[in-house]
Amino acid sequence: MSQSTESTRAGGTSGRRPTLAVVGATGAVGTVMLGILSQRQDVWGEIRLVASARSAGTVLRVRGEDVVVQELTAEVFDGVDVAMFDVPDEVSAQWAPVAVERGAVVVDNSGAFRMDPDVPLVVPEVNPAQVRNRPRGIISNPNCTTLTMMDALGALHHGWGLTELVVASYQAASGAGQPGVDRLYDELAVVGGDRTLGQRSGDVRGALEEKLGSVPSPFPAPLALNVVPWAGSPKDGGWSSEELKVRNESRKILGIADLKVSATCVRVPVVTTHSLAVHAVFQRPLTVEDARQALVEAPSVVVVDDPEQGDFPTPADVVGADPTFVGRLRQSLDFPNAIDLFVCGDNLRKGAALNTAQIAELVAAELSAA
Amino acid sequence: MSQSTESTRAGGTSGRRPTLAVVGATGAVGTVMLGILSQRQDVWGEIRLVASARSAGTVLRVRGEDVVVQELTAEVFDGVDVAMFDVPDEVSAQWAPVAVERGAVVVDNSGAFRMDPDVPLVVPEVNPAQVRNRPRGIISNPNCTTLTMMDALGALHHGWGLTELVVASYQAASGAGQPGVDRLYDELAVVGGDRTLGQRSGDVRGALEEKLGSVPSPFPAPLALNVVPWAGSPKDGGWSSEELKVRNESRKILGIADLKVSATCVRVPVVTTHSLAVHAVFQRPLTVEDARQALVEAPSVVVVDDPEQGDFPTPADVVGADPTFVGRLRQSLDFPNAIDLFVCGDNLRKGAALNTAQIAELVAAELSAA
Repeated sequence: MSQSTESTRAGGTSGRRPTLAVVGATGAVGTVMLGILSQRQDVWGEIRLVASARSAGTVLRVRGEDVVVQELTAEVFDGVDVAMFDVPDEVSAQWAPVAVERGAVVVDNSGAFRMDPDVPLVVPEVNPAQVRNRPRGIISNPNCTTLTMMDALGALHHGWGLTELVVASYQAASGAGQPGVDRLYDELAVVGGDRTLGQRSGDVRGALEEKLGSVPSPFPAPLALNVVPWAGSPKDGGWSSEELKVRNESRKILGIADLKVSATCVRVPVVTTHSLAVHAVFQRPLTVEDARQALVEAPSVVVVDDPEQGDFPTPADVVGADPTFVGRLRQSLDFPNAIDLFVCGDNLRKGAALNTAQIAELVAAELSAA
Repeated sequence: MSQSTESTRAGGTSGRRPTLAVVGATGAVGTVMLGILSQRQDVWGEIRLVASARSAGTVLRVRGEDVVVQELTAEVFDGVDVAMFDVPDEVSAQWAPVAVERGAVVVDNSGAFRMDPDVPLVVPEVNPAQVRNRPRGIISNPNCTTLTMMDALGALHHGWGLTELVVASYQAASGAGQPGVDRLYDELAVVGGDRTLGQRSGDVRGALEEKLGSVPSPFPAPLALNVVPWAGSPKDGGWSSEELKVRNESRKILGIADLKVSATCVRVPVVTTHSLAVHAVFQRPLTVEDARQALVEAPSVVVVDDPEQGDFPTPADVVGADPTFVGRLRQSLDFPNAIDLFVCGDNLRKGAALNTAQIAELVAAELSAA
């Protein structure tokens, strides 16, 4: 909604700009969210920052102004039109319905409601119309790993009909929040000057134990000089919760109930930006040039794909950017109608805060236009 | 061959223990090879160490003795029964035939001969009989990325008939040799104390440029705080040489001419040990427990697979060990007859030196028995 037309609107918010609450404002995603809200075209009236009692009273800067963080209570949602939640699943499960009861539309970035059939799971570039299909007053933001590839796969699915996905992830530490980032930096400070580590079984583990033994890690193994093939919690059949999210959320967002998916989720020593190696199979024949053209035309996708010139996406080059970066486009040599690609996306931005902000803006436009 | 029976043997080496030449003795794989030759049951008579003129004269320790490195010449192969080569492709292409001409059987770890139909490509646990099928007198050792998964996939193929592989790699710096290891340590020394890096596009690249700008890197992008979706040289269709090796060498080793393979090869900031996320499809139905049992029974495979207890293979825990470590075994939820798994193997040991030593020992046994 442009600012010049805002005053002519009436309805859901009676012509005023909607009030936004940001719940979880002090976390890793919350911090990025405040930056995004300060950078994007401003559709909001009041922005209320909310966090746990421990963080209440903190002063944070948003849209160039200092805002005092308020404690999460039922009353804090009074007068709120849209409430974004970026808090643990159990906090969302408890408080999102409270916010709805107080009159807010909730955009939730936890896993609490994503697979609820009465809660839409939205990527604005892929299924924006689903925003209005919210009988519980809650809209879910997808898991960051799934989100990393949705814009690109949405564009390809639109053209050729996706049927199968085999995905391996290279997930950043910040997917585990600020404790993940802190832990990676702590570990790198230990290993960064030692040119003997990583050459004998367990030597990295031993060095970290010696220097950081008393500090708990959010990761189940050393992350520095290592990769950790586990993210999330254990589910049936040896799958991790993260891997099942990639499968189930991809099906729901793309609207393909029988999409075949196998995902292996692996944490890597990268601060921010998830990467995915994707093997995608389609109903209809496509060439790699077909796929490239569709991705180039997708507004939120940037194709970086000239390996001979060193051009391919890497997380350290992509971090901080809004689009999904795609490269290493290859036509599978042996699988019909299949394309292999490598995708990088900032897991705190498009993977979390940006997509949440985009959904909230769709709701704001709807409320303002109502 | 046991030492007690050695003196009774006659034939190829006339009862004496065969003479071994190690060409490329001063490289990253060569260094590991000398350790392996010192640890394994000793089947060799003389061990001759060979390298380029630049490294000739260096004294290295093998089997507890100091050995002076000799320059690579035709004459150095006189009297040699088996010559292991771990040198660049073009050096092998030139010198392996010279060694054969001088009477040696060559076990070559370069890419120069691997796809030659007259050169067997051998993994002793998978296709040991191929060692004798060497009309050119040359036996090739597979690429380290392919080798990482061959023991495990060989065991599964034996049981259920492999038809399709989708693979994403997490490849260690030492796959690019000692310069790769040096570079990773150099980069980690730069980023290891800076808790701001990895949060803005290009900040890692900038810091490395500032501190290491004059030092060339074997990698086409920063490796610290990053992953690099490129290994090897460019081939047709956007594929890297490494990715095509995984496809073509898997087909040759397993003897499956029409095996469908898509591989994406990615370098990660790990010193040594390659990891692979593997999606494997089979002709015949199998359960994850079938697969687990076959892998447990495979002599060179160790199954580490209890994620709830934090038990899965990681490269930092596997480095320096001989077996292939397999974990994260999962039955694909949507693909019939498919298993997903995560494999780690030391790319300098089973991925290079150890497999080469095992092949050479097969030849030694044959020559001694002849």
